[in-house]
Amino acid sequence: MEEKGEKVVSSAQLANKCMVNAAQVRKDLAYFGEFGIRGVGYFVKDLLNDIKRILGLNKEWKMALIGVGNLGSALLSYKDFLKLNYNIVAAFDIDPPKVIGRISEKLGKPVEVLHINRIKEVAKERKIEIGLIATPPSEAQRVADLLVEAEVKGILNFAPAQVTVPEGYVVKDVFFTTILDNLAYLLSN
Amino acid sequence: MEEKGEKVVSSAQLANKCMVNAAQVRKDLAYFGEFGIRGVGYFVKDLLNDIKRILGLNKEWKMALIGVGNLGSALLSYKDFLKLNYNIVAAFDIDPPKVIGRISEKLGKPVEVLHINRIKEVAKERKIEIGLIATPPSEAQRVADLLVEAEVKGILNFAPAQVTVPEGYVVKDVFFTTILDNLAYLLSN
Repeated sequence: MEEKGEKVVSSAQLANKCMVNAAQVRKDLAYFGEFGIRGVGYFVKDLLNDIKRILGLNKEWKMALIGVGNLGSALLSYKDFLKLNYNIVAAFDIDPPKVIGRISEKLGKPVEVLHINRIKEVAKERKIEIGLIATPPSEAQRVADLLVEAEVKGILNFAPAQVTVPEGYVVKDVFFTTILDNLAYLLSN
Repeated sequence: MEEKGEKVVSSAQLANKCMVNAAQVRKDLAYFGEFGIRGVGYFVKDLLNDIKRILGLNKEWKMALIGVGNLGSALLSYKDFLKLNYNIVAAFDIDPPKVIGRISEKLGKPVEVLHINRIKEVAKERKIEIGLIATPPSEAQRVADLLVEAEVKGILNFAPAQVTVPEGYVVKDVFFTTILDNLAYLLSN
């Protein structure tokens, strides 16, 4: 809406876009403070900034990618991360020389691919807070353990395997091939 | 397990890998028929084939990609789709000439990028069953409508916007940047 130059939005309009009801929108926002003006709505620009602040998106998040195979390369080439304040500042693989050629073909300014055994040192040095796991599923837990050891608190796990982390660490899964399998199942039944 | 040459697996082992309990594994499988041998377990190869059949993965699924921007290009370059029996057989964009250069840099044998207005005709011709939406969120519903019109029954929606489809159609969302935002929120609070 900001890109379209819209200045004001009502809770009803927001509700409609999110497919919830307007009371829910008002209630959810009220949870974080006072926004908007009764009878007018919310100023788009202000609300966007407030939501970014609430979500922790008003800062740059430094990320490490682990596993520069097929999926990892695709993630490295996904430039919108940066637009969203996420920045892949390091990439790791068990065999960096093998993958570097493939990467540099894809990216103007390639991220240096380092050996996985340097993760602890580099994570500290570059203040990495989020790790993206894009290894084969069989390696996911081992990588999660390395990230925990390196005190990387957040993990986005693209490898379709459940991993566990100690308290104080957070894992979120993005198993899109599993979701695709689920879709295929629904279509064939 | 098959890749590792393992022949037999118990429900306890499966449960452990899936982080559920063994009774649940047995119950879930029993829902689809009789598998495994009491006191022995399941033959890995047979079980894999049975699960593939149940999930509808013993056939090739033809997919169309809509939106060949940043994310779309990454999806096109994701070769594991094919290994999983998913095949992107057509790609569409509102401005094919603009994106074709970018694609062919990335892929040995590029998928032809067609204008979005050809989707209905091409979907029928190439028997497309799944559409991947990788457009900006503002275009997601419009693209979903086109897919429905083209009778593409399944949609995997990567554009972070809710879309609705009529009965008989299925949408699954993969909003990984939203999941990343959620992770950032949890880390900053």
